[in-house]
Amino acid sequence: MNTKQVKAFGTTGAAEPLHEMNINRRIVKAHDVEMEILYCGICHSDLHQIKNDFGGTMFPIVPGHEMVGRVIAVGAHVKNFKEGDLAAVGCIVESCGHCEYCNDGLEPFCEEGVTYSFNSPDKLLGGATYGGFSKTYVCEEKYVLHMPAFNDLAAAAPLLCAGITVYSPLKHWQAGPGKKVGILGIGGLGHLAIKIAKAMGAHVTVFTTSASKVEDAKRLGADESVLSSDAEKMSRLNRQLHFIIDTVSAKHDVNTYLNLLRHDGTVVLVGLPPEPLEIGAFNVVMGRRSFAGSNIGGIAETQEMLDFCFQHNITADSEVIAIQEVNEAFERLERGDVKYRFVIDMASLAN
Amino acid sequence: MNTKQVKAFGTTGAAEPLHEMNINRRIVKAHDVEMEILYCGICHSDLHQIKNDFGGTMFPIVPGHEMVGRVIAVGAHVKNFKEGDLAAVGCIVESCGHCEYCNDGLEPFCEEGVTYSFNSPDKLLGGATYGGFSKTYVCEEKYVLHMPAFNDLAAAAPLLCAGITVYSPLKHWQAGPGKKVGILGIGGLGHLAIKIAKAMGAHVTVFTTSASKVEDAKRLGADESVLSSDAEKMSRLNRQLHFIIDTVSAKHDVNTYLNLLRHDGTVVLVGLPPEPLEIGAFNVVMGRRSFAGSNIGGIAETQEMLDFCFQHNITADSEVIAIQEVNEAFERLERGDVKYRFVIDMASLAN
Repeated sequence: MNTKQVKAFGTTGAAEPLHEMNINRRIVKAHDVEMEILYCGICHSDLHQIKNDFGGTMFPIVPGHEMVGRVIAVGAHVKNFKEGDLAAVGCIVESCGHCEYCNDGLEPFCEEGVTYSFNSPDKLLGGATYGGFSKTYVCEEKYVLHMPAFNDLAAAAPLLCAGITVYSPLKHWQAGPGKKVGILGIGGLGHLAIKIAKAMGAHVTVFTTSASKVEDAKRLGADESVLSSDAEKMSRLNRQLHFIIDTVSAKHDVNTYLNLLRHDGTVVLVGLPPEPLEIGAFNVVMGRRSFAGSNIGGIAETQEMLDFCFQHNITADSEVIAIQEVNEAFERLERGDVKYRFVIDMASLAN
Repeated sequence: MNTKQVKAFGTTGAAEPLHEMNINRRIVKAHDVEMEILYCGICHSDLHQIKNDFGGTMFPIVPGHEMVGRVIAVGAHVKNFKEGDLAAVGCIVESCGHCEYCNDGLEPFCEEGVTYSFNSPDKLLGGATYGGFSKTYVCEEKYVLHMPAFNDLAAAAPLLCAGITVYSPLKHWQAGPGKKVGILGIGGLGHLAIKIAKAMGAHVTVFTTSASKVEDAKRLGADESVLSSDAEKMSRLNRQLHFIIDTVSAKHDVNTYLNLLRHDGTVVLVGLPPEPLEIGAFNVVMGRRSFAGSNIGGIAETQEMLDFCFQHNITADSEVIAIQEVNEAFERLERGDVKYRFVIDMASLAN
């Protein structure tokens, strides 16, 4: 297959820093879109993968799956994109396209398995897919999103993973007027969940272990903000919430939050704590409550989310960095020192 | 308040055997029904309570909450029962009657708390409510069920708790034609879940750790019966089931079963393991799966369940005992030596 070399930032081992490297991108085929990447967000799962936290990382790895860019080439059969269009690519760049889940817009659960935008087996070129810490991306048109013309395109990049990860459960569990939604943890995911849940019309209560974030939650739009160590405030919320989005990525106590749910309420985990979480039987049996999980949505829902965020002027609170600062950014991300998302300006990476 | 003495079987301490005692029952008030108890089932939660496993047991305790009987007196304002009617009382004998949950038929989640048929504070007589291991029961008409004329009334008694505990989630999660339902564990709850799920039209797969029960599950109506240690059969069921009713009351691995669920599938816990259960994040996040709980249903749903079971000729596989054998029955229940439910013939207790 015809390829061309492009510049990227990646690493050859879990203990190595990221550095500049060359990777191959395929030349556009008939259904492909080629995009110059303008901005790429940094997500906690990039960090997990470069550190091989879940095992199975294929080195060399080029992370990045929150890509915003501009179309620079399209294949002969591409219908919905043309050169110069704003575009975006998120987590998924291929699925079987014919199983019941793909047919239902639930590509992440494709029966044949999905290809992620990085660190998945690349079915065409061999090796692994290389992500968005690079100058360009190429994939089939149907996995490319139309990027609305956000005033701040950089700050919109994190919507491609963090945004859809919270939008999808908020929509599925019907956040809206009359619904009391809890959000556990204020980080990349949590701060977007506040904004999106408010835009959907829900009443939003934020829970944080960090006193310094109690006020920030209100600035972000929360109706209530509770320090989770405040036993009196917590007990007032007993049986009050319809559902809670749990964005915490470390081991934590879920039972306290299950008890804040109304009948048929759900705590929805969107973080990925590496250790299992403990659930007491009574906390789910009483009130028919659930502890559920949710991850990214499908392609159609991701487009819907981008359009919703554009309409409601929602972007991530972002700190834009040059690609050369990426190792420091990962260190800061690891210790939670970012409000609330890093975005790489890809102009900093020379062609 | 006017009371009269009736014979019962109960105990004065967690270490004591049950023995005959006298208790007071109130004289029927205007809205009350008095029932002579013909049969009373024995449930694992009776065992938990007499042993004070959850703490909070009020001694002396008279257990029993699966009561089938015949009406012997009604108050002046009782509309729907008359002397001689078959009747039944289950777990709940009072709730506030005006909160949103009571209004929705979800009495078990009443905002003011429910009164259980035994071991709850008795608001009229003081002390604790005394359960069905006795000659009579008295409560308000609205907590009394109409008992259909089952051929085997004794075997129908366990429906009042075990039956509704599995009927309620099977209905809520829409067991029916086209649905693949898993049932984890074959005991008092599990064996009724098989019968009810089949009657609803679902495809039923049973999971058991006990080789001797694999065939019994089929006798009870299961379409498939899997020894959970059979890795090959388990892996064939990966992502195949719509939901699973988990009846296991001891600590166990839930993650294996979460992985058998389709997208949006649910494992519903109806057992009450005293230790918390561990849930791995990926097992719920992938496929938006849930780990939920469910307990008994409300009064209207319990009536619906009785009528459904009568129509489909469903009763529990029961071993009928005399009240004098109850201590031995509890010992056998503790070691799982019953297929599948003990029922006490109350004629064995002299007036």
